[in-house]
Amino acid sequence: MSIHLSTPEDYKALLDKFETWIFDCDGVLWRGDELIDGVVEVLHILRCLKKQVVFVTNNATKSRKSYKTKFDQLGIEAHVDEIFGSAYASAVYLSSVIKLPKTKKVYVIGMGGLEEELRDEGISYLGGTNPADNTLEPFSLANFTLDPDVAAVVCGLDTQINYTKLSKAFQYLSRNPGCHFIATNEDSTYPSADGLLPGAGSISAPLRCAAGRDPICTGKPSNTMLDCVKAKINFDAERTIMIGDRLNTDILFGQNGGLSTLLVLTGITEEADITGPYASPIVPDFVTQALGDFRAVDKVKAP
Amino acid sequence: MSIHLSTPEDYKALLDKFETWIFDCDGVLWRGDELIDGVVEVLHILRCLKKQVVFVTNNATKSRKSYKTKFDQLGIEAHVDEIFGSAYASAVYLSSVIKLPKTKKVYVIGMGGLEEELRDEGISYLGGTNPADNTLEPFSLANFTLDPDVAAVVCGLDTQINYTKLSKAFQYLSRNPGCHFIATNEDSTYPSADGLLPGAGSISAPLRCAAGRDPICTGKPSNTMLDCVKAKINFDAERTIMIGDRLNTDILFGQNGGLSTLLVLTGITEEADITGPYASPIVPDFVTQALGDFRAVDKVKAP
Repeated sequence: MSIHLSTPEDYKALLDKFETWIFDCDGVLWRGDELIDGVVEVLHILRCLKKQVVFVTNNATKSRKSYKTKFDQLGIEAHVDEIFGSAYASAVYLSSVIKLPKTKKVYVIGMGGLEEELRDEGISYLGGTNPADNTLEPFSLANFTLDPDVAAVVCGLDTQINYTKLSKAFQYLSRNPGCHFIATNEDSTYPSADGLLPGAGSISAPLRCAAGRDPICTGKPSNTMLDCVKAKINFDAERTIMIGDRLNTDILFGQNGGLSTLLVLTGITEEADITGPYASPIVPDFVTQALGDFRAVDKVKAP
Repeated sequence: MSIHLSTPEDYKALLDKFETWIFDCDGVLWRGDELIDGVVEVLHILRCLKKQVVFVTNNATKSRKSYKTKFDQLGIEAHVDEIFGSAYASAVYLSSVIKLPKTKKVYVIGMGGLEEELRDEGISYLGGTNPADNTLEPFSLANFTLDPDVAAVVCGLDTQINYTKLSKAFQYLSRNPGCHFIATNEDSTYPSADGLLPGAGSISAPLRCAAGRDPICTGKPSNTMLDCVKAKINFDAERTIMIGDRLNTDILFGQNGGLSTLLVLTGITEEADITGPYASPIVPDFVTQALGDFRAVDKVKAP
């Protein structure tokens, strides 16, 4: 059973209890390009209290560096080393977990942000934003040469998805022995400023279907993402809280990592999803309407 | 346990037993654009014996009329009213099962053949081969107007698949109440002349993922396809045999319809798929290497 936060004392108690605050971004801090009310003030309160702040996003279309500019544009204080994205997690998974040899390559379905993170980890890649693969021209295997050095397919949200990319990725998955299959994240939809659109999970779905296998997902709720955070930031799971708007990514991610969890209702999850007979089996520790609710701590009466 | 045909008498017995012969095409009659050895002769034998011949294909990129030209080019005798495709089955499902009102429309992910079958059934449609939707330009909901008359999304193999089409189809599935979701077929791969490519099942996979629902499939192994055949052709299931190369489409289709089944090994299924510890639970009644094996009947000794 979740605790619904409501009084100034409720919010104050959480601020006292947790030292590290890990935030999902879309649906918590902003919706599309629109800042959610009260976010800047609450993050300011956290920083004044010397809390450790971490941002964890499944958005794999942007690198951490370009994600930083989104924070800047919306007037939210953030630093690149506080930001962890699923594209970064995929790149780290390839370089540090699989330890892909330098002679090997990755075939990319994804956008510039994923490519940037791969480059930063020293990983060679094909596909991605290469104009030759961003085409609606007919694809024929007669004109395709399988590169035997492609040892992994990495798939993220790609709004340039097309049959050539899908066909090439499928060839590598089905014909290069031992080819790894990695997805940045499994989100079925993506919250654009004007509504939901197909997400990264929908972009990797054709490959899951054609190749008959499921990818390793490095984004939330996978522990791979938390391993990336742990590699860079020291935190005590007992005193860390994960704040998000999605039960099956953010809240599950926190639970998988042994963190406390807080659900906000400014994104994808509605009250009806967590109460009543059809409630999700994923139950957050705490629930509040919006992150901005923490502004109530200013009203805590002096003891 | 399947009966493996081998002697001239085996083939003669099947010719004596079955009056209606339903054939899958790709992998049975041809591979890509290449005729399989002996096919023309065996179909000639069947026609000389006054057998009823039916062709059933999950290929939804071609209409029955344009499929006929493929038979012509390969020198195989066939008539349009003997050919049943999954695009035709989808169109018939919309017009005759759902009985889509004339004021309603369908959003199409698919190619010219699917559009032609819809037109022939008097169904209005959006998307498909419309150049406005065959683009890799960015898609934004801000520039999209939901058409309230779209009452179904129909999805077939579409080598022009892109984010605009997927996003529009997803809007109709998720925002137009009661919107039907129909897939021509679920084949995960498609056997091109030079090897396997992602099939129609892979093209509908993003929509299944994003919308969180499964389509009604009208192609094999669905009974909808057999209902279309029944509506046009009289046959006795007891004296009908389905010949195909895929266990989970062709052979299952025959079994679902109460027909006898014959697997040929000139397509997707290999001997190892039907024998040994990892054999499929779908067991055809008969197995032979190739359709051309029926030429052996010429060697049956006179009694």
